[in-house]
Amino acid sequence: MKYSPLFWPIELKGNAICILDETKLPQSLTYIKAINYRQACKAIKEMKTRAVGQVLLVMYTFLLESRKRNTPLSKVAEAINATRPTLSFKFLTDMVLGWGKSGAPLEDSIKGFLGALKEARIRQAKEASHLLEDGDAVLTHCNVSGLLPLIAEFCRRDKKRISFFVTETRPYLQGTRLTAWELNRAKINNTIIADNMVAQVMFERKIKKVIVGADNLAQNGDIANKIGTYQIALLARDFNIPFFVLCPPPSGAETGYDIEIEVRPPKELLEFRGRSLAPTGAKAYYPAFDITPHELITRHINLNIVR
Amino acid sequence: MKYSPLFWPIELKGNAICILDETKLPQSLTYIKAINYRQACKAIKEMKTRAVGQVLLVMYTFLLESRKRNTPLSKVAEAINATRPTLSFKFLTDMVLGWGKSGAPLEDSIKGFLGALKEARIRQAKEASHLLEDGDAVLTHCNVSGLLPLIAEFCRRDKKRISFFVTETRPYLQGTRLTAWELNRAKINNTIIADNMVAQVMFERKIKKVIVGADNLAQNGDIANKIGTYQIALLARDFNIPFFVLCPPPSGAETGYDIEIEVRPPKELLEFRGRSLAPTGAKAYYPAFDITPHELITRHINLNIVR
Repeated sequence: MKYSPLFWPIELKGNAICILDETKLPQSLTYIKAINYRQACKAIKEMKTRAVGQVLLVMYTFLLESRKRNTPLSKVAEAINATRPTLSFKFLTDMVLGWGKSGAPLEDSIKGFLGALKEARIRQAKEASHLLEDGDAVLTHCNVSGLLPLIAEFCRRDKKRISFFVTETRPYLQGTRLTAWELNRAKINNTIIADNMVAQVMFERKIKKVIVGADNLAQNGDIANKIGTYQIALLARDFNIPFFVLCPPPSGAETGYDIEIEVRPPKELLEFRGRSLAPTGAKAYYPAFDITPHELITRHINLNIVR
Repeated sequence: MKYSPLFWPIELKGNAICILDETKLPQSLTYIKAINYRQACKAIKEMKTRAVGQVLLVMYTFLLESRKRNTPLSKVAEAINATRPTLSFKFLTDMVLGWGKSGAPLEDSIKGFLGALKEARIRQAKEASHLLEDGDAVLTHCNVSGLLPLIAEFCRRDKKRISFFVTETRPYLQGTRLTAWELNRAKINNTIIADNMVAQVMFERKIKKVIVGADNLAQNGDIANKIGTYQIALLARDFNIPFFVLCPPPSGAETGYDIEIEVRPPKELLEFRGRSLAPTGAKAYYPAFDITPHELITRHINLNIVR
């Protein structure tokens, strides 16, 4: 099986964590090195990696710092927890601190978790592939870290041809830069649309299913995901199109509305590659995530990490 | 009354039609000159001007060519009709050809129409202002050619303070470049959002009303407008938010679905200022307009041109 670079975007090589710089894609496939937890946290804050990349980065950061034994792991956990509000890092860092306290060798625990995570993600892609039929066109938003090419590969093995519509996903254009890129690499038919074209392509009956990822799964099945997911879910309901979510493990949040939505700097919306798009003095509002309530989700495709 | 440059973006000066180049905004306020109908049609095709600007350009083009008497006006009409499919130029060009046949001096007919159009637009803005209440935040999409600052000005006279949320409107960013620009010039509070944030700001109860324009009004009240309008209308219905449309005169189309949707080149979505956003070989789909059915429109604010 050949994986997208986005499927496992972080590796630990010697004393350095190698982080796929997703902000440089699709122009170049570059890895950043982090040699301590501060550099790792900076990469998270600057959104160099996202979603599963962040989980991997957290794990490799603990692995690195536990080998060095310079910094108490509780301090590493604190720094990680402080990076981004919407994401459930506390759940992960508590888990690692728990392993540390259990007396088992921490390195084994982390490596065991990472191995189980990889297997679980492959099973998750396989389960998703079973929800698709030959000829389906699937709308997706943002990027689901290498899972879509894997889903398409499982479909191919089952002799089902599928294709994708990819929203460009403003302002970071993860759809155009990451999803279309990894699908093209894997030679999977895909078409980019702007975020404002969703209703139109649904109206034209071009979309048979929606599949998105999630940054945070609440206990009640609500999800937090990249801004724009919520309105796609509402539109899918209007057009009676199944809406599937590739979920992370549930977080500590009881409902989606217990998850704080990160509001990011307006200039991320008003500038593009350092050049201003907007008139001088323009104001903007940039909530980076939104909550899709469980009622709008046809099926949760869970990540079952068995260790 | 001070108007936005977008309220009347075309003027005839001597032998040249001066066309506000909307693609250069907000960086510079530049006018292109067209000295014959071919150059005018080129400006339409390249989307240098839109909406009411196109109506004015059609009128001034006939005025210019009728003075020169080199080209039969039927040929001018044909060239104009062929520029863009979604827009109802035939309605306009038929009207002018009709005036030509009536025996009345064509120049007087055109000038009379333009004067009546200006008055009608001012009345339209006034009528819209009566639908707004003190404190209203109004979501808008794309650009309504100078009408929003005018609406805000009428509200100000009635001691009502209003503000706007402006969708950036990919891929041409008319919201960011034109609407935020003209509102800022008139010192009207406005906030830019990405097209994928509409449901979220509605969910946060930040939006009290929606006001958009229309490129084409069908006989049954359906409208064609910039891509993205339809999904905003669907979301407004979901959130029970009134959806108002500043309409042009009705076209010949019986329903919205009789209006052909213009599909524009993918590179307009995949490139930005000549630089590629997407991976090599990326595909895109760019329907430039969509149809909002009349059931989703709370109120049509009509343009009543009385001559």
